[in-house]
Amino acid sequence: MKITTLDTTLRDGAQGCGISFSAQDKLRIIRLLDELGIDIIEAGNPAASPKDAELFSRSISLKHARLAAFGATRRKGISPQEDPSLRALADSGVDIAVIFGKCSPRDCELVLGVSPQENLDMISQSTEYLVRSGKQVIFDAEHYFRSFRSDPEYALACLRAAQEAGASEVCLCDTCGDCLPDAAARSVAKAVSALSTPVSIHAHDDSGLATAVSLAAVSAGARGVQGTLTGIGERCGNANLSSVIPNLMLKMGYECIPRSHLEKLTGITRAVAEICNITLPGSMPFVGSNAFAHKAGMHVDAILKQEGAYEHIHPEAVGNQRRILLSEYSGRSSVLKKLEDMNPELAGDKELARTLVSTVKQMEHDGYRFEGADASFELLALRTKGMLRSYFTLDLYKVMEDQPFLGASTNASAMVKITVNGQSEISAAEGKGPVDALDKAMRKALLVFYPSIAAMHLTDFKVRVLDSSLATGSRVRVMVESTDGVSFWSTTGVSTDIIEASTIALVDSIIYKLYREEKCRT
Amino acid sequence: MKITTLDTTLRDGAQGCGISFSAQDKLRIIRLLDELGIDIIEAGNPAASPKDAELFSRSISLKHARLAAFGATRRKGISPQEDPSLRALADSGVDIAVIFGKCSPRDCELVLGVSPQENLDMISQSTEYLVRSGKQVIFDAEHYFRSFRSDPEYALACLRAAQEAGASEVCLCDTCGDCLPDAAARSVAKAVSALSTPVSIHAHDDSGLATAVSLAAVSAGARGVQGTLTGIGERCGNANLSSVIPNLMLKMGYECIPRSHLEKLTGITRAVAEICNITLPGSMPFVGSNAFAHKAGMHVDAILKQEGAYEHIHPEAVGNQRRILLSEYSGRSSVLKKLEDMNPELAGDKELARTLVSTVKQMEHDGYRFEGADASFELLALRTKGMLRSYFTLDLYKVMEDQPFLGASTNASAMVKITVNGQSEISAAEGKGPVDALDKAMRKALLVFYPSIAAMHLTDFKVRVLDSSLATGSRVRVMVESTDGVSFWSTTGVSTDIIEASTIALVDSIIYKLYREEKCRT
Repeated sequence: MKITTLDTTLRDGAQGCGISFSAQDKLRIIRLLDELGIDIIEAGNPAASPKDAELFSRSISLKHARLAAFGATRRKGISPQEDPSLRALADSGVDIAVIFGKCSPRDCELVLGVSPQENLDMISQSTEYLVRSGKQVIFDAEHYFRSFRSDPEYALACLRAAQEAGASEVCLCDTCGDCLPDAAARSVAKAVSALSTPVSIHAHDDSGLATAVSLAAVSAGARGVQGTLTGIGERCGNANLSSVIPNLMLKMGYECIPRSHLEKLTGITRAVAEICNITLPGSMPFVGSNAFAHKAGMHVDAILKQEGAYEHIHPEAVGNQRRILLSEYSGRSSVLKKLEDMNPELAGDKELARTLVSTVKQMEHDGYRFEGADASFELLALRTKGMLRSYFTLDLYKVMEDQPFLGASTNASAMVKITVNGQSEISAAEGKGPVDALDKAMRKALLVFYPSIAAMHLTDFKVRVLDSSLATGSRVRVMVESTDGVSFWSTTGVSTDIIEASTIALVDSIIYKLYREEKCRT
Repeated sequence: MKITTLDTTLRDGAQGCGISFSAQDKLRIIRLLDELGIDIIEAGNPAASPKDAELFSRSISLKHARLAAFGATRRKGISPQEDPSLRALADSGVDIAVIFGKCSPRDCELVLGVSPQENLDMISQSTEYLVRSGKQVIFDAEHYFRSFRSDPEYALACLRAAQEAGASEVCLCDTCGDCLPDAAARSVAKAVSALSTPVSIHAHDDSGLATAVSLAAVSAGARGVQGTLTGIGERCGNANLSSVIPNLMLKMGYECIPRSHLEKLTGITRAVAEICNITLPGSMPFVGSNAFAHKAGMHVDAILKQEGAYEHIHPEAVGNQRRILLSEYSGRSSVLKKLEDMNPELAGDKELARTLVSTVKQMEHDGYRFEGADASFELLALRTKGMLRSYFTLDLYKVMEDQPFLGASTNASAMVKITVNGQSEISAAEGKGPVDALDKAMRKALLVFYPSIAAMHLTDFKVRVLDSSLATGSRVRVMVESTDGVSFWSTTGVSTDIIEASTIALVDSIIYKLYREEKCRT
């Protein structure tokens, strides 16, 4: 059975803390959601923002999705035609208008200052007006669940008012995210049996239950789900469609997006997150970078013996992939698996795996962690095998910081000397701090020999103080992530000296780039 | 009705990507969980790590919680006494032993290589052995739900084997996180009716349903919940106790932790996250910084008209607070409370509180967080009031690091010039890194004027990279904790330059010491 999907990243998602979209961002997200196979994209409120109004006036050709514009039922005491927000909806170029309204006498009085009867008129007149202007209308029943708890008859009367005025769908909104799944299912079932119009669900995650509420509503007869692909939205966010969709399709047997598109889920969700400028938690179900990452040695052994031992679905089904994390808990089998995944030239080398297990144990004792630093691990394996040539040596570096305390600007500088094939190069740079200065100086010197590193830059920089009770004498572990625009890789360094730890990670990140490049050419 | 809570941050949580704990971290987390009122703290596996074995050999006095050690049923073909892991559990100093075992014929064969009957023997003999050695035993039934789906009788037989051998609790584990809440509830109900021993639930969040599964299990008769306070754990993490506990207590009427402790939930969860060195998502239910943040103008209006219009609970109930984004009204009462707590001379100063609210807002925007840095906050208040005299000025510092790369030893040095009452002092020192060198040089110079700072040293040093995607140009936040042997205080500094950020925190930590000392004398 088909369940309609409505993504509201661009409307409810935009209410999330720290989220704002340019017109260009909105267009890019619309294209991505369309590519995934989302049915309806709620793209904004034409009355609330000129940017949205402009967006809706454009003709955007999509493969599958239809655009929806969002607004409210008419204001009190005027006709729909007199309400500029409703007129903006009617005049927008999109097929679908979503309007929200109240459905409890208490909300009518306290928030809108209207009688329950006028609210019913507001719902039906607004719906009728939009239907007459050629829109398909979805009525969003705000605070539906608590309204139904306090006055079930009136809540249902509001839904019927929308249905009788021609709404094509009524959406039950758990606006505060306070509903428990069982209670939601009972309310949905009652609405479904009271109406002929399809019912859908709009859940929020304030109780950590938005996915469960969405699934329970579908089990109880809802035929549509609203949410955002990355889970962003006001407060704790909206129902996370990147969890709801695979659960419905893979575990409950419903159709949401075209089956063959499911494997785009991880990639598209991450791309949308990039445009939203948010970092997806690694632990995000289905699409997170750690969603199929295994660390405990025992789990890794079991995974290798028996596919799916510690996985609820095949990671490939949603376009994600399994990761074997190396840690003090890992044994030879996970190292072998990792070598095979990362470099065919190292696959199956049991002798190497044995050596690496003990090297890694010793290095972890010193504070290293390779679980997030695949490139450092690969370089370690290549060095152990003598398979890594010397691309450059960093002969010396000098870092200076010299300033009046809290002066106008930080004044850190670095000088480095590198040698490539017997030829030396000295270079210096300033930076926002000593590590930044060193990074810049090193790149400047290396560019003379390796112009391709111009395309490379760091995308992440993390510092973890280890035995922090040793205070400023503590060891620190630095992790850096780099990209050349095509792929990403991570390296790590450990030292009591943050500059040295950073240098180790920076040098490895450049060597890895040069190694990969050379390998592709040969 | 009371629901027992077991937190496994230190065991299953430690399997999370990027998580590793020092012995000191573990102790601090144990104290925090105890303070919250968690019943059982699963603190590690004594056989898997010497660090854990050492922890369990210590005598840790707790107010409420009991410690549990984790391990597996005995290996095949040997007696429990011959199994070093079980012996380590028996010999550990804790009250409770948690052992996990298989409960499907398929897992017995494929993963353990034993017959279903031998697995039953392994469960009962291991349980008996631990009970005889004086432990309360919890049996964790791994992969319970899928085992029950494929062979319900055998799965129940495994639980009965543990019960008959004296286990005080059997825990049904959704190890892969693949269970839907309704199906989980049905399986739990069957286990509850088949056993006299209490049943508990251990859920994982692979489907985004761990909270829902935990609640459904309790509704179906489970009397215990396992999870981690911040939701960390293997892959997508464990059930998030900071969501499960308030749902059970505030929405479903169960008792979990003492009612009066619920308002510590947000503070303690954030403190545990700091020790884990993870960033809690702002959108985290109940405890996230955005969990009660309102942005939409409409929502803010409604909230002011009608408490709870867009909130599922009172934020104060879990120690969180409402945030009206872009408003200056939030926070004054908490600032007043804080001033009163920290310094009687500042108590009740509403004008000061108003000024501080806006200063803190600006500083938080720049990356400061005062939650863990009370001394910095007190100094800020004193400076704002003009109540802090100048103990010294740091006129300049020079930091140099000059070395062959990866040379024998790090060679960082620093020179500082300070002035006290018009008298200057220049001093220099070497250190294990630039910050260490600077710290030493500064103390050396100050000792000339303030001999008492000899008694003071740093006990903790933490670095958090903020906008880490700006790579080496990112801002960093440094937190240092200091002690003079009598009391502890924390200070913080933020800059793109780690040396500058550290200097700000170091200088404040010394000033705070001198201020306190002078105040005690007068």
